[in-house]
Amino acid sequence: MHPLDILFSPRSVALVGASPDEGKLGGVAFRNLRAFRGKFYPVAPTVGDIDGVPVFRSIADIPETVDLSVILRPAPEIPAILAEHAGKARCAVIVSAGFAETGQTGLQEEVARIGRELGIRILGPNCLGVFSPARRLDTFFLPTDRLKRPKQGNVAVVSQSGALLMCLLEALAEAGQGVSRGVNYGNAVDLDAPDIYDYLAGDAQSRVAVSYLESVGDGRRYVEAARALSRKKPLLVLKAGKGEGGQTAAYSHTGRLAGRYEVFSSVMRQFGIREVGDFDELLDATHALAMQSGGAGKRACIITDAGGLGVLAADECSCIGLELPAVPEDAQQRLRSIFPPFYALGNPVDLTGQVRDDQYLAALREVRDSYDGFLVIAHTGVAGVTPRIAPLLVQFRSECDKPLVVCMPKGGIGGKVGRLLEKGGIPAYSTPEHAARGLRALLQCE
Amino acid sequence: MHPLDILFSPRSVALVGASPDEGKLGGVAFRNLRAFRGKFYPVAPTVGDIDGVPVFRSIADIPETVDLSVILRPAPEIPAILAEHAGKARCAVIVSAGFAETGQTGLQEEVARIGRELGIRILGPNCLGVFSPARRLDTFFLPTDRLKRPKQGNVAVVSQSGALLMCLLEALAEAGQGVSRGVNYGNAVDLDAPDIYDYLAGDAQSRVAVSYLESVGDGRRYVEAARALSRKKPLLVLKAGKGEGGQTAAYSHTGRLAGRYEVFSSVMRQFGIREVGDFDELLDATHALAMQSGGAGKRACIITDAGGLGVLAADECSCIGLELPAVPEDAQQRLRSIFPPFYALGNPVDLTGQVRDDQYLAALREVRDSYDGFLVIAHTGVAGVTPRIAPLLVQFRSECDKPLVVCMPKGGIGGKVGRLLEKGGIPAYSTPEHAARGLRALLQCE
Repeated sequence: MHPLDILFSPRSVALVGASPDEGKLGGVAFRNLRAFRGKFYPVAPTVGDIDGVPVFRSIADIPETVDLSVILRPAPEIPAILAEHAGKARCAVIVSAGFAETGQTGLQEEVARIGRELGIRILGPNCLGVFSPARRLDTFFLPTDRLKRPKQGNVAVVSQSGALLMCLLEALAEAGQGVSRGVNYGNAVDLDAPDIYDYLAGDAQSRVAVSYLESVGDGRRYVEAARALSRKKPLLVLKAGKGEGGQTAAYSHTGRLAGRYEVFSSVMRQFGIREVGDFDELLDATHALAMQSGGAGKRACIITDAGGLGVLAADECSCIGLELPAVPEDAQQRLRSIFPPFYALGNPVDLTGQVRDDQYLAALREVRDSYDGFLVIAHTGVAGVTPRIAPLLVQFRSECDKPLVVCMPKGGIGGKVGRLLEKGGIPAYSTPEHAARGLRALLQCE
Repeated sequence: MHPLDILFSPRSVALVGASPDEGKLGGVAFRNLRAFRGKFYPVAPTVGDIDGVPVFRSIADIPETVDLSVILRPAPEIPAILAEHAGKARCAVIVSAGFAETGQTGLQEEVARIGRELGIRILGPNCLGVFSPARRLDTFFLPTDRLKRPKQGNVAVVSQSGALLMCLLEALAEAGQGVSRGVNYGNAVDLDAPDIYDYLAGDAQSRVAVSYLESVGDGRRYVEAARALSRKKPLLVLKAGKGEGGQTAAYSHTGRLAGRYEVFSSVMRQFGIREVGDFDELLDATHALAMQSGGAGKRACIITDAGGLGVLAADECSCIGLELPAVPEDAQQRLRSIFPPFYALGNPVDLTGQVRDDQYLAALREVRDSYDGFLVIAHTGVAGVTPRIAPLLVQFRSECDKPLVVCMPKGGIGGKVGRLLEKGGIPAYSTPEHAARGLRALLQCE
């Protein structure tokens, strides 16, 4: 048991501010929490039941101490409501906005003090809370037509910003990537990124952690937690507030100084914590790390059926620090004996528009021991590329546990074959540059 | 009339190598060319008609001189077939592969010579040919389930690589962006990028030209044509073969030396021809330039309803050279009098999750004269953002002819509102970084 199981895997949840009206936030949250796999206690002063679920007039009336209370009431009411939680809740998600971010620092400090005095851990205020699909825990006050939830999976998403959490979850859902945890900690009067990292380090459901940050409270504590998590599983950090423009913006958004980005970045590098440059790179790297383990080395081999896409992939590999050594002479000779003379056996290996699926496997087997990872480009506009390529590449991965990513433009059968590949644990990207960035995420691993 | 109207707007088209079998390339091309709005003459030695369309035994049997002949026969047959075109065709698209790219340089030179002697312009060989949706001209041997065609629009796509043309057309179709011309010139024994640029400079259907290049035949001629086209309309060039890895790959793909990239890039800059860094940036810039005219200056204002997205946009703007000056004091005072006190009136202007649609318009009107372009972030997870925002932003654009782009994450109603915006001439991007790159494309314009 980890202390934060009360937040991520509670046995019982209360919703203070439940409403029968689905047009209200408390009505949306009611509907989302109703699916929770555990005890659910809606709380509202004037409602007997909602859709047959009994409603309690106060948190004090609930016949047990709940693990988690989700509070959705206007900011000025929060101190009194939180005081009523004495002995009745172990952890509270304070969703309400209207605290430090709107200048109400006194109110925020009061809430923090009450939580400390009562021994109640607090997430927020000004946050979306927690999403844990294995338990169907979903504290978001957003209907599914405003925010599509990803399926259950192995990526944990931690975000200081609610909007960024939404964007990341949407993008992962769109990419078919499952999520283990989603959490937005907002103003962080108590629980902050380091507490969450500490939980994720031991969370068997989470294979990869991605974290969006604008500012860090206690720098030393942050770095220690990030380092400890990074030793257990990949942690990808997207830090906003890089340029002067962004730093000013981050300050006005959170009231915390973003700090000099160069300092942050150099500390991260020093401690082996991975930063990504932007939203796209975060998604590209997550996609790869959710499916495959990293390997050692930086030598990549590109195998393509489309010369132009191979050139763009080679450009990007060079640009991001991957090496593209030539195919060794003996492997070239063996390939020369089985392939038509116009296949180009450099790196990229260009199997041209004449390729057949099985030739990818033949080429990969010949170069297997000479490289650390592989980038396969399979443009499905080429007639010889069929859905059969997916099991062939999965077979190669079973023979050779090195990173392998695929660039498969979405057109034609590309979408379908991409899904087959991903079921088999091979990430598929729609452009050569994204595929190269995915491969780098795997080859950066120690 | 431009000499290349015979390629892009022919009145009559022959297909040499037509087949009744849709499993064959000649059958796919027959089906695609059948929709052509003009005279269509399929040619095949042994077939009387295909689906009721009379078939000619030889190009010589066609009762007129056709503007364009599309030739889909094996490479070794091409010299003889081309010789039969004497007096019967003005231009030929030689689709067939198996020339210089597979080492058959002698065969390629012979074809070039025959074309010159007969006065027949040649596109290819080893190319997909031409797509001109206004005339329903489609010489591609790819069925629509292998390559989805974009709708008719104002973007011309010119690609040395067939696979890249396919990827670009697919991505534009996916983004709902229409295309005026799509052309892949392959081995370029006659018609090359400069000829096509010259045509596009005067082509009223094309507002923006995008061009994928691996190598350039005659450098001086290329630069002159690119410069002349750039003076008429935006030309975006994606040059592959940037790093050492990519240059080696480009050479093996085309047999032409890519040349030192730094030299190419500096020449392009010197002559005001725009290069883009990768596939994504090409799409981002195209999207913006297809909808709006460029403006002068580099001062951008970001208006957001989500602090975190505003910070990422500000970071990217700083990184790519846009300036983000603070909102002038007098505009701040006027906005302060109409907005709640917790709205942050920096740059980004953060209207927070409490925003209502009309407040975007109010803010834009106040800052209108102080900036050169605007980046509006409207996260639709926020309740006050509704489809009404689209006509409000379109109204602002009608009052102020400056560049305006929107970041609207695809979740929830985002996709629908994004389409409404684009119908009104405002490009919508799903991440803040892509939106910033779109805005830069508009502000780079002179």
